Amino acid sequence: MTERFTPTPDDRFTFGLWTVGWQGRDPFGDATRAPIDPAESVRHLAELGAYGVTFHDDDLIPFGSTDAEREGIVKRFRQALDAAGLVVPMATTNLFTHPVFKDGAFTANDRDVRRYALRKTLRNIDLAVELGATTYVAWGGREGSESGAAKDVRVALDRMKEAFDLLGDYVTEQGYDLRFAIEPKPNEPRGDILLPTIGHALAFIERLERPELVGVNPETGHEQMAGLNFPHGIAQALWAGKLFHIDLNGQSGIKYDQDLRFGAGDLRQAFWLVDLLETGGYAGPRHFDFKPPRTEDLDGVWASAAGCMRNYLILKERTAAFRADPAVREALRASRLDELARPTAQDGVAGLLADRSAFEEFDVDAAAERGMAFEVLDQLAMDHLLGVR
Amino acid sequence: MTERFTPTPDDRFTFGLWTVGWQGRDPFGDATRAPIDPAESVRHLAELGAYGVTFHDDDLIPFGSTDAEREGIVKRFRQALDAAGLVVPMATTNLFTHPVFKDGAFTANDRDVRRYALRKTLRNIDLAVELGATTYVAWGGREGSESGAAKDVRVALDRMKEAFDLLGDYVTEQGYDLRFAIEPKPNEPRGDILLPTIGHALAFIERLERPELVGVNPETGHEQMAGLNFPHGIAQALWAGKLFHIDLNGQSGIKYDQDLRFGAGDLRQAFWLVDLLETGGYAGPRHFDFKPPRTEDLDGVWASAAGCMRNYLILKERTAAFRADPAVREALRASRLDELARPTAQDGVAGLLADRSAFEEFDVDAAAERGMAFEVLDQLAMDHLLGVR
Amino acid sequence: MTERFTPTPDDRFTFGLWTVGWQGRDPFGDATRAPIDPAESVRHLAELGAYGVTFHDDDLIPFGSTDAEREGIVKRFRQALDAAGLVVPMATTNLFTHPVFKDGAFTANDRDVRRYALRKTLRNIDLAVELGATTYVAWGGREGSESGAAKDVRVALDRMKEAFDLLGDYVTEQGYDLRFAIEPKPNEPRGDILLPTIGHALAFIERLERPELVGVNPETGHEQMAGLNFPHGIAQALWAGKLFHIDLNGQSGIKYDQDLRFGAGDLRQAFWLVDLLETGGYAGPRHFDFKPPRTEDLDGVWASAAGCMRNYLILKERTAAFRADPAVREALRASRLDELARPTAQDGVAGLLADRSAFEEFDVDAAAERGMAFEVLDQLAMDHLLGVR
Amino acid sequence: MTERFTPTPDDRFTFGLWTVGWQGRDPFGDATRAPIDPAESVRHLAELGAYGVTFHDDDLIPFGSTDAEREGIVKRFRQALDAAGLVVPMATTNLFTHPVFKDGAFTANDRDVRRYALRKTLRNIDLAVELGATTYVAWGGREGSESGAAKDVRVALDRMKEAFDLLGDYVTEQGYDLRFAIEPKPNEPRGDILLPTIGHALAFIERLERPELVGVNPETGHEQMAGLNFPHGIAQALWAGKLFHIDLNGQSGIKYDQDLRFGAGDLRQAFWLVDLLETGGYAGPRHFDFKPPRTEDLDGVWASAAGCMRNYLILKERTAAFRADPAVREALRASRLDELARPTAQDGVAGLLADRSAFEEFDVDAAAERGMAFEVLDQLAMDHLLGVR
Repeated sequence: MTERFTPTPDDRFTFGLWTVGWQGRDPFGDATRAPIDPAESVRHLAELGAYGVTFHDDDLIPFGSTDAEREGIVKRFRQALDAAGLVVPMATTNLFTHPVFKDGAFTANDRDVRRYALRKTLRNIDLAVELGATTYVAWGGREGSESGAAKDVRVALDRMKEAFDLLGDYVTEQGYDLRFAIEPKPNEPRGDILLPTIGHALAFIERLERPELVGVNPETGHEQMAGLNFPHGIAQALWAGKLFHIDLNGQSGIKYDQDLRFGAGDLRQAFWLVDLLETGGYAGPRHFDFKPPRTEDLDGVWASAAGCMRNYLILKERTAAFRADPAVREALRASRLDELARPTAQDGVAGLLADRSAFEEFDVDAAAERGMAFEVLDQLAMDHLLGVR
Repeated sequence: MTERFTPTPDDRFTFGLWTVGWQGRDPFGDATRAPIDPAESVRHLAELGAYGVTFHDDDLIPFGSTDAEREGIVKRFRQALDAAGLVVPMATTNLFTHPVFKDGAFTANDRDVRRYALRKTLRNIDLAVELGATTYVAWGGREGSESGAAKDVRVALDRMKEAFDLLGDYVTEQGYDLRFAIEPKPNEPRGDILLPTIGHALAFIERLERPELVGVNPETGHEQMAGLNFPHGIAQALWAGKLFHIDLNGQSGIKYDQDLRFGAGDLRQAFWLVDLLETGGYAGPRHFDFKPPRTEDLDGVWASAAGCMRNYLILKERTAAFRADPAVREALRASRLDELARPTAQDGVAGLLADRSAFEEFDVDAAAERGMAFEVLDQLAMDHLLGVR
Repeated sequence: MTERFTPTPDDRFTFGLWTVGWQGRDPFGDATRAPIDPAESVRHLAELGAYGVTFHDDDLIPFGSTDAEREGIVKRFRQALDAAGLVVPMATTNLFTHPVFKDGAFTANDRDVRRYALRKTLRNIDLAVELGATTYVAWGGREGSESGAAKDVRVALDRMKEAFDLLGDYVTEQGYDLRFAIEPKPNEPRGDILLPTIGHALAFIERLERPELVGVNPETGHEQMAGLNFPHGIAQALWAGKLFHIDLNGQSGIKYDQDLRFGAGDLRQAFWLVDLLETGGYAGPRHFDFKPPRTEDLDGVWASAAGCMRNYLILKERTAAFRADPAVREALRASRLDELARPTAQDGVAGLLADRSAFEEFDVDAAAERGMAFEVLDQLAMDHLLGVR
Repeated sequence: MTERFTPTPDDRFTFGLWTVGWQGRDPFGDATRAPIDPAESVRHLAELGAYGVTFHDDDLIPFGSTDAEREGIVKRFRQALDAAGLVVPMATTNLFTHPVFKDGAFTANDRDVRRYALRKTLRNIDLAVELGATTYVAWGGREGSESGAAKDVRVALDRMKEAFDLLGDYVTEQGYDLRFAIEPKPNEPRGDILLPTIGHALAFIERLERPELVGVNPETGHEQMAGLNFPHGIAQALWAGKLFHIDLNGQSGIKYDQDLRFGAGDLRQAFWLVDLLETGGYAGPRHFDFKPPRTEDLDGVWASAAGCMRNYLILKERTAAFRADPAVREALRASRLDELARPTAQDGVAGLLADRSAFEEFDVDAAAERGMAFEVLDQLAMDHLLGVR
């Protein structure tokens, strides 16, 4: 393979321990792979060129470990990180695997489950900070319902707000340099999940006591499971100043959550996504949250992880070439992207109303005849994606 | 048919002129029905028991009418309203039919189109207020794109914000008692539309200069086109204090925008929606934005309109019975909805951390064994929906 | 609850052992319920009014059991059936849980896996026949792929045909009174599954050596996962003489496979489905293939199972009332369903060409003006569904 | 642009007159482009390198033309074809635009509409043959319903069969060298359309009196509107010997029918599709059925048409390179595609049962541990698609 698509830590690629460590258990089948020791994952990912790893509490420290076991595990993990030169920029809580969370965590109907979930989260925040994380992701995968009366959504949102407010209090009181990133998902494993899209999460954040501490961690496949354009969602998150983290993977349309390697699934959206991340001011890690298909053995796992990074780098080269191409710049002008960037009505209401060219004397039919030249522009993008220019 | 499901103006049912007036033109076929005079629609809808009508500027006053024609039309319309006893609680602008809007209106790449769109809107706001409307809906159906470079979404959101800020300035300066309601839609007629869901619109509103003036006007089918649970979206809008208006109709899953009569499509979501609207503090009109199928003649049109209201009233009776049923109340308790309503952590971070029963001594396995009893509860809802209790 | 919706064996309701026995393991969570002894399921289902049970080999006899264990299990199962008065009209093979099937069974790339899958199937066919089954279901849940080159679909269809031809040879040679029913599904657990819909399965069957031995076993949710109208698919299967069995459950649109209890999900399609099954000549069991949500304990499991049957019986009453209603009959005539039942061109090509009223003198505009009166008809159906007539 | 992707007639690219001629009328907007004279389209498409054009009767001869007008139009069209050197390999009937077809054509409830539809079809078949077409496409876009009782599907399939049987009689009696190709679509413009997928159409064909005369004309976007894998569907059609024609375009997932230019939408499926068409024995035209977005003027229309062909040629080069790459061949072996091509059980039932290595002595756990190496293979495909090998 071409040298120029070999990742280095400067590319800031990170992987969840649960990604390469996924054993392949699915709703219809048992595990096809043995567990991997987190230290082994760290070593392998470093060899492949990764920058860091992320984890759920239970990925690292098996649920139910004693304090002594915990301490030993953390020590070994830290040694593995140091040896490999990897960092931990993000961590998160597993609030979905254990059956106690079957009706949710922060919005479980049972108050004691909610309190337990918060304590489990606080505990892992301490570890996250200890390991150097500055982002704490919250995926509320079980916060939802399959039937209409099972969850009073307004009341559940009150509970959700209460949870994030408390978490915000905690990190503030502790003086932690840690921000939260909510990960939206429309459904699966619940029939409908609360805060189903980037939009719903962004809107929710505005009602928190410390909105500045909370942003989003959108995942490619999650938005695409609702048929939404992922780059558009990311753009709105950037616009709102709220893209705190991102989960990159692949999804082939509206169906179960596939977690394909990055690049697989909707390749054209992946192109526009990389274009946006590389030019839009996002400075965080490029985090892969994928599942190597359960058909694969360990060699396949590492090949799949390598493919995520390789595809990102190929697309990074291609989008850069697209933006640098004089023909593209001309095409963007022909499509009047420069005009979109001009304010519409700096003259305010009065100016607009006084401007007869804006309405009374506007030649609407002539304006309607102007072609937008989007097909030429889009074919240029296709040519760059395919590498034929 | 049973008398008890006959609507009256007290039910506050309203219809868009464009709904019963739809001529049945679709992407593959010509009109199947002749135009209806708005005055005729007003008369018929009043007979059926409606409370009011709503309109796009061009529904009432054909695009390109002279000022004199306009004046005559408005006068006749007002007379028809008065004669029928109907009100106009809402109006909106057609920023999508004329080819000049082929690339959008408030976010068209062409600045002159954006200015024209704003002027067209301001003009109709005056008429809306004159006719008594207190809500002004904005559906940005053409604000979007089919290809990745055609629209810089962050820049487009700047333009969108500029537009709503200017509209807010206008109604404030004029002293109008008018609020705006943004209507989200994920796609169609554009490949991807900006502000695709309730969530995205709610989040956008928070970045406006006068967020208090702007809420949402969600439409059943639009959210369901993204596979989202409509009552959940409405609940979040209510929670945010932003349900300013609502568009009721039917949709059979993720496909083209069907605009079926209310009740058709996802009947169980319709049940939960009515439950929520009737108990959740929404005080606005129950507005139907549907399209009588193009297979129908005018008799079918009125039957379809009548069906919208009838189905709402049936569901209203059924949801009221559900909430009043002692067995339901018991089932809600068995599913611990009362516990969901209790704050999780009034004791704050310190209290929670000090509470050993919350974590150290929490019997997680015992908690996990508790059944949620949701199936019994949901079957009770089904029984009430089907009228077998 | 009303007595009239209490099931009896005459209603021919059957359940898979794996349905009530599902432990609630999902892609993101561990089991929430303990295993149930099949004998216990038999007893409970009989009490609820079921007619029979069905099974995968591994539901009854754990994978890897010795022959002696197997014998004991079968004996106990048979005793439980006899005691409860339940029958076993159908059985099927688990060709998806064990990791050996990770790339499929009849179409696995590995030939030895394919041979093993066939042997596993032949073995369970013997047991199925021994227990009285006359239908053998084949769900090829793992026959598919996540990536384009991983499966040559035409070659895989050759292998699939080979498998069914061999199975047909076997039951013919053995003189078994057993027919096969292929269960289509579009995706999950594979990215794309072969024979994804009723249509694809029906078409495939026509290329088999013994097509008369093979029909379909459509599942509500599987077709709805492709956004298809389930009653329409069932109608085409009936039209082709191929509805050998059916899997009833609920699904809320295009998303992961939900397996909700029958009635949940798309209630209006459930109405039309029952209407079709009760009037369309289907004589087989009404088989429920659902999963009681993992939020439920055992009480919830039985409530959910009872709900499946109850909802079917309610809809059976309602659809019968719909068909018996004179107003409905009149509405069907007004919508010209009687005309649809008349042959179009018994006069053949020559007659049609000679008939000037068919073309040269056909008043196409007059014909176009006739309304179809479908909205009145559909509202009558809604009224019957909701029980307000 | 690179010379090597310039089409010539040898590439057998064809376009519907209705594609470049689409005026941009959509459900929410008026036409944005003037009509194009078919002769003009012919000239332009020839210049771009096309091989032929196709047409609906009404594309060429406006509905309601007199016989004299018709004759003149056909003469001019033929002259344009001759001058441009284009052929007409396929034609079809417009049975959807005129309101008379609002409830369908071959399955309209009104018998006289059905007879009129057949006559309209017969008439255009004569013209198709006269112009040299050997394939006649039938898209039953209006054959369906929006509500459950409006169409008795089994009866409608009887009418559909009657229609195709009659058409088969006609071309046989006339001695025409013409075969039919049914074009499936799941929905839009009807809520649900009969024969919704390739599979349903293939199955239907088997029940016709002359199945050998009838195949399918699948369209990329139509199958993808049901979330189905298009190359998989094409593979099954080829396997059945029924791929008589194909409609190439682009679609971005499950939503309204987009008809994007080929290559837009799901690019990875486009890669596998071209791979299959070029190696799978399909000898017919590569027919584009797309709609240049209504944002475009005429320059954009031709750019969009050119893009369809260019993208096909790029993908043709890339898939050929993929198949020729020794590393790919090795990867295919590593994934055991060669083993999939070996018969499973040539030894028949007896041989299989006697083979203890197939079951009794099969090491199922060892077999389960073999990785399928699909991720390496798929990344090779990605590399070839992106042109980085």
